[in-house]
Amino acid sequence: MRYELYYWPEIQGRGEYVRLALEEAGADYVDVARRGGGTDEMMALMDSTRLDHRPFAPPFLRAGKMVIAQTANILLYLGGRHDLAPKPEAGRLWVHQLQLTIADFVVEIHDTHHPIASGYYYEDQKKEAKRRAEDFRQRRTPKYLGYFDDVIRKSRGPFLLGRRLSYPDLSLFQLVEGLRYAFPQMMRRFEKKVPRVVEAHARVAKRPRIAAYLASDRRIPFNEMGIFRHYKELDA
Amino acid sequence: MRYELYYWPEIQGRGEYVRLALEEAGADYVDVARRGGGTDEMMALMDSTRLDHRPFAPPFLRAGKMVIAQTANILLYLGGRHDLAPKPEAGRLWVHQLQLTIADFVVEIHDTHHPIASGYYYEDQKKEAKRRAEDFRQRRTPKYLGYFDDVIRKSRGPFLLGRRLSYPDLSLFQLVEGLRYAFPQMMRRFEKKVPRVVEAHARVAKRPRIAAYLASDRRIPFNEMGIFRHYKELDA
Repeated sequence: MRYELYYWPEIQGRGEYVRLALEEAGADYVDVARRGGGTDEMMALMDSTRLDHRPFAPPFLRAGKMVIAQTANILLYLGGRHDLAPKPEAGRLWVHQLQLTIADFVVEIHDTHHPIASGYYYEDQKKEAKRRAEDFRQRRTPKYLGYFDDVIRKSRGPFLLGRRLSYPDLSLFQLVEGLRYAFPQMMRRFEKKVPRVVEAHARVAKRPRIAAYLASDRRIPFNEMGIFRHYKELDA
Repeated sequence: MRYELYYWPEIQGRGEYVRLALEEAGADYVDVARRGGGTDEMMALMDSTRLDHRPFAPPFLRAGKMVIAQTANILLYLGGRHDLAPKPEAGRLWVHQLQLTIADFVVEIHDTHHPIASGYYYEDQKKEAKRRAEDFRQRRTPKYLGYFDDVIRKSRGPFLLGRRLSYPDLSLFQLVEGLRYAFPQMMRRFEKKVPRVVEAHARVAKRPRIAAYLASDRRIPFNEMGIFRHYKELDA
């Protein structure tokens, strides 16, 4: 089956967590909006009266007759199919729990530059962004990354579940990659406190399919339209 | 099996979405932190080195040997066990997708009064809260509730999936209940635009087990420590 991924063409955004899973799985997929006219196709499908399960927002994945939205939900689906999650219920719920915690962190990362409203320009909420980013750097990042480091410590690593890679490892890789782009100064000082997270990131980056993906033009570069944005004044 | 729910004792918060599912299911559960000394027990369990799957934050549910965290993940688990979700994969993913969209809305509701940081007092981010709440009332609430109304329209109602109640209906009930408490003026004007959501709310409220729960002292009243807070200046 060829999957169809629907997401904005210009950014990594939330689509990237899905792309990393599809790439690691070696799945056959097409990134619809990155073809010419793809955004129109995505918007048409979202507004479609024919769709039984209309998504609230991208990303969404067409898998045969199903259209699945919500990043963590898509990964729940893919994880079961491509050996990126344990089969038994307890393990399956645990990796999903980790993914939902990552999703919470992603909202907080986004809101460092958009604390008031996604619909306003960054420039119109810059002052508020500075306040929010300060708390983010001092308290939220240590809390989240410290938690994931502790999960890896308990599993004995190198991954969140131990020796076995699962889909939240791919998302954790993306968090480190993105935070290094957006908050290089913060990460330079902070990374030594979460050595297991840093090691897990390095191991994911070296996996053959992920390395090939990162070197390809399928990987959209970070930019100031996505979730991870580098604004000097928000780093410290 | 007797479930144990771990959550803060003073607020409905995210624990409430789990309580509503447990109550509708007629499940045997104990709300641990509402017993004397329960918060200490919760904190001890969270910090426990014995726990294989340590939660990042409450709520979490102990179900036999499993400890499951993240509200939507707990509901995914309970939905399958208590007939609050369809069994086939497509339906199971669809209700989870709806729940995750509700979860996104819950974050936005919380952030109307805490746009800068959860760790600061409301009073220290009141000005920012007013700006965020304005966008929330004018754009975000119509977008989310309009979406759920459209889902009910498509399913032909009265619930999100049609004639059959599923766990996101219980959460949607809580959203309407909470928004009426926190933003009474907004809701007074807006509700006529989402008649199907209002009708679904009324039907959930009348279900015998939910009605009994709402009338009991197990239901914590809304207050200004939870997610839904009534601050006149944020309503309009």
